[in-house]
Amino acid sequence: MKVAMLGAGNVATHLSKALIRSGNPVVQVWSRSEENAVDLALKIGANSITDFATIADDVDLVIIAVSDDAIAPISSLIPQKNNRIIAHTSGSTDISVLSRHPKTAVLYPLQTFSKNVELDFKNVPLCIEGADVETENLILKLAEKLSNKVERVSSSDRMLLHISAVFACNFTNYFYTVSQELLEESSLSFDLIKPLIFETVNKIADNLPQDVQTGPAKRNDEQTLAKHLKILENKPALQELYRLISQNIVKKYVEAESSAK
Amino acid sequence: MKVAMLGAGNVATHLSKALIRSGNPVVQVWSRSEENAVDLALKIGANSITDFATIADDVDLVIIAVSDDAIAPISSLIPQKNNRIIAHTSGSTDISVLSRHPKTAVLYPLQTFSKNVELDFKNVPLCIEGADVETENLILKLAEKLSNKVERVSSSDRMLLHISAVFACNFTNYFYTVSQELLEESSLSFDLIKPLIFETVNKIADNLPQDVQTGPAKRNDEQTLAKHLKILENKPALQELYRLISQNIVKKYVEAESSAK
Repeated sequence: MKVAMLGAGNVATHLSKALIRSGNPVVQVWSRSEENAVDLALKIGANSITDFATIADDVDLVIIAVSDDAIAPISSLIPQKNNRIIAHTSGSTDISVLSRHPKTAVLYPLQTFSKNVELDFKNVPLCIEGADVETENLILKLAEKLSNKVERVSSSDRMLLHISAVFACNFTNYFYTVSQELLEESSLSFDLIKPLIFETVNKIADNLPQDVQTGPAKRNDEQTLAKHLKILENKPALQELYRLISQNIVKKYVEAESSAK
Repeated sequence: MKVAMLGAGNVATHLSKALIRSGNPVVQVWSRSEENAVDLALKIGANSITDFATIADDVDLVIIAVSDDAIAPISSLIPQKNNRIIAHTSGSTDISVLSRHPKTAVLYPLQTFSKNVELDFKNVPLCIEGADVETENLILKLAEKLSNKVERVSSSDRMLLHISAVFACNFTNYFYTVSQELLEESSLSFDLIKPLIFETVNKIADNLPQDVQTGPAKRNDEQTLAKHLKILENKPALQELYRLISQNIVKKYVEAESSAK
């Protein structure tokens, strides 16, 4: 397939490279920032464009890899054309926002991309969807050339998957930041806690996370919970989070256990 | 040193094995549950005891590795003796709860232990403290035989470290559980999201977590945040957490950025 990439951010960059490696050339790049479009186009040997009307006639697939809010407006500016698939890459955007086009699809890579961190795209789970069977099969075939982990996922399931990812990835990274900032206050190094972080993740490689929960809330160790809340008194936002999450954990483990007795 | 271990849980078990490997025999084991004491004693070739008065005269170090609430009562039951160090292993318990004894210390392993997961204790950060210089140096020397990562940490810093660990380890594991439960609802496999979880942690091996934050809150993508909150409507506890953490992230990244302009 010949591809036009709309977007030049982290997803657009990593996806473009993977497409090219799989023998599907990205021939045109557009970005809200012309400079970024030129940069990415140069990197991958494509042409940069500034006008959606100049998307080449022989492009088979237009990928919209931009921020969620921009998908619908960009879709409305792309000329309709019968034999071209329009796809977006968003976790939380229904496939129907593309519906003015005859063939539409979704190609959602479930991974966290950073500009300067190289990734083996073959291991990135790709969640795909097509508005019709033929289109879905075409996107499935393409996706299987890009990754070893391809799943058909509906728009509503994809949204739940994205929310899951926010908890398991974005919010956990925020808690690493909280941890780092607390340690800085006592001039302790964040490195001190890294073995604990890595081991926490190692454990879920082979166990369900609910089976390896530890900590004062899991034990309903009220004395320790009270001490921690007291220390966080001058950080009300963190104190509130500590209280709520601990309550949830106590509810899940301690109350469930006592009602089972 | 000859050691008596009071406690037979995860910390007591892993610490006992590490002590023995380092040439410091654990000769006696006590536990609230006699059965557990006998079990651990058998495993490590020690004697189990049921009465603190029978702690042998030649024991140099008594380690209290029990739940935080039980440390003070147990300390008060241990006969006072001049040349014996009494130590606990808790993150959030001040060394002063042991102060009726002449020599006291803390040996806090900053790691998450599970019964059946073997661990290289040499890589477990050990935070140590002694109530007097001589005792602290003795505990430091012992700790350095057990681990390559030993730090002197005061009781108040140790508490902050423990709170950091709750956020970075216990709460993140809880969020893995949340993620797993959301995926189960849509009959998607938790395995689908594991590459994302592992990559999130990989990124902080070489970067500060605050520099690799991603997600809708980081971008202040209001449309997506609103969609996610709507989906979580029938899960008020999760919805509240989603709202609060997203607000914190927006505050940290978006508001900080706009006030810097």
